[in-house]
Amino acid sequence: HHVIVCGYGRNGKQAVQKLQAYNQDFVVVEMDEHVVDRFEEEKIPFIHGNANEDEILIEAGIERASTLICALPSDADNLFIVLSARQINKELKIISRASEETSYKKLKLAGADNVIMPDKIGGEHMASLVVVPDLVEFLDNLSVSGEEDSINVEQIPFEKVCSDGVEKAIQDLDVRKKTGCSIIGYKAPNGEYIVNPEPSLIIKKDSKIILIGRPNQIESLKKLYHV
Amino acid sequence: HHVIVCGYGRNGKQAVQKLQAYNQDFVVVEMDEHVVDRFEEEKIPFIHGNANEDEILIEAGIERASTLICALPSDADNLFIVLSARQINKELKIISRASEETSYKKLKLAGADNVIMPDKIGGEHMASLVVVPDLVEFLDNLSVSGEEDSINVEQIPFEKVCSDGVEKAIQDLDVRKKTGCSIIGYKAPNGEYIVNPEPSLIIKKDSKIILIGRPNQIESLKKLYHV
Ligand SMILES: [Ca+2]
Ligand SMILES: [Ca+2]
Repeated sequence: HHVIVCGYGRNGKQAVQKLQAYNQDFVVVEMDEHVVDRFEEEKIPFIHGNANEDEILIEAGIERASTLICALPSDADNLFIVLSARQINKELKIISRASEETSYKKLKLAGADNVIMPDKIGGEHMASLVVVPDLVEFLDNLSVSGEEDSINVEQIPFEKVCSDGVEKAIQDLDVRKKTGCSIIGYKAPNGEYIVNPEPSLIIKKDSKIILIGRPNQIESLKKLYHV
Repeated sequence: HHVIVCGYGRNGKQAVQKLQAYNQDFVVVEMDEHVVDRFEEEKIPFIHGNANEDEILIEAGIERASTLICALPSDADNLFIVLSARQINKELKIISRASEETSYKKLKLAGADNVIMPDKIGGEHMASLVVVPDLVEFLDNLSVSGEEDSINVEQIPFEKVCSDGVEKAIQDLDVRKKTGCSIIGYKAPNGEYIVNPEPSLIIKKDSKIILIGRPNQIESLKKLYHV
């Protein structure tokens, strides 16, 4: 089960570095021959071709891949690939970048599980720091991955939260008392996020809860839910 | 009370755009003559010179400025300016960018109130989305500034939280019951952040609490604390 990265630009390269750090199998689809030639020495496994074409996706192993990362600079290209990939493989996890705010929903409709907007983040950042620098700095320094003993935010899927398969209300988990962590978000089965969900909210099948805590609290949480 | 922006590169430009949007007075210190010539037509108020020199900072009005944004590409240059500026004006709010993780503490020691690392954010982003895409997306979509009716994260300073000047424990605020918002962070008087503070934590003078909520909950919060 490998990862397919479409596009070896700035974002694609960053994703690849992390995949290498995690010893994940991956392949990169890149249509610029010069880029392929330049980086082949670094042992990046390239498929030279246009990911817009189904044959190239199939050559990249889309039918058995676990994840597709669309990191092309054009939202239209990413949309095309997301739609094609989703038709070929229903189980695939699809992550796409987007430049325009208006592309976010379109990419989700086309079948992307996650849509990330790196430019918006960079721009909003310098912008927000003028008005609310403490908030920006606080959120930036929250660690979502990396060293075990530094993580501040974690997600737990329904099947771990309600391991007996029975849907429960957030307040019935008693997660703050048991682990110290606080629930700050809920990803509904349809993919929508609820910020700061009500204690009475029922955790549905195929949903996820998102929690914040200090590293030792996150470790208690992982132990409690066996993740 | 104006803002001084040092450096009109990618980040400096983004900050300036937001300052313009908020109708904030500002001046930009830039040493590259070509940049000054190119953007002067756009009515950016430039001071042409090196912000490393105290005379240039004084020419930019550092003694009466409210905020300094150091957005130079070199951490060493930013550090030099932060230290100089802090010596000239003790009351100034100083925000600096940094490229290297190791510069964060140094810039704070030199007198920066906030340190932002745009490259780290971009890099960590594409990286984290491979392992925890839902968390990345959830945090990205939290709104910290902009439209009143879209904000999800807010900070309240001690003097608003405890308007009688008496230090109180977090649990005694009853802020969840009163507004629906949840406290997710605490900025101590020494500038350090505590993620997910304990309910028993005493809110000290010169500190801030950081809260998460849906836009209507954030509005109740602002009403409650008159911010
Ligand atoms: Ca981080
Ligand atoms: Ca945002």
